[in-house]
Amino acid sequence: MDESGFCPIYEAINLLQEKWVLHIVRALLGGEMGFNQLARAVGGVNPATLSQRLERLVALGVVEKEVLQVMPPRTRYRLTRAGRELETVIEAIEAWGKKYLKPAPDPRT
Amino acid sequence: MDESGFCPIYEAINLLQEKWVLHIVRALLGGEMGFNQLARAVGGVNPATLSQRLERLVALGVVEKEVLQVMPPRTRYRLTRAGRELETVIEAIEAWGKKYLKPAPDPRT
Repeated sequence: MDESGFCPIYEAINLLQEKWVLHIVRALLGGEMGFNQLARAVGGVNPATLSQRLERLVALGVVEKEVLQVMPPRTRYRLTRAGRELETVIEAIEAWGKKYLKPAPDPRT
Repeated sequence: MDESGFCPIYEAINLLQEKWVLHIVRALLGGEMGFNQLARAVGGVNPATLSQRLERLVALGVVEKEVLQVMPPRTRYRLTRAGRELETVIEAIEAWGKKYLKPAPDPRT
């Protein structure tokens, strides 16, 4: 924490614990996407929530949004350099999940 | 994803995006704690939510709970080996936050 009370680790955790944010980052690590494609890749998020999360990620400089001047206008989302560096977090989560999370036992067996 | 549809990365993200889970893990990386001490360390969580998150983390084998047979009974929470290995995730978040998150500009200046 610095003298203003700002703790970058606390703030980073607050960002990444917002529902869907890690899923959005993981999806965009695979490459830029349009809104509908991203909604499908994330799976289960409603469009209003996805819009709100993307706006926040754009404001924080994690995602950039490009509006293509075609008819009808199309939007592309991609990670900034800061966003791409979240790959280290996703990779750590991936390694941990593969090692420690197992499917719940099938209740039919 | 395996043949049952279980994806450990997706499940790990679902766990870690639950509000307070990353804060709880970060706090317990500093050592075992009682419930009230943990609530203070996490900051802002209400006790019912903290209990619910701790139950889930115990069920998943990330946290272990010990009830000390004293009067009044006291409870201690500590990370299991699986929980301690989430330090790799917290460290990646920490490095990223320090590099990319800055305090919002003070509106008074």
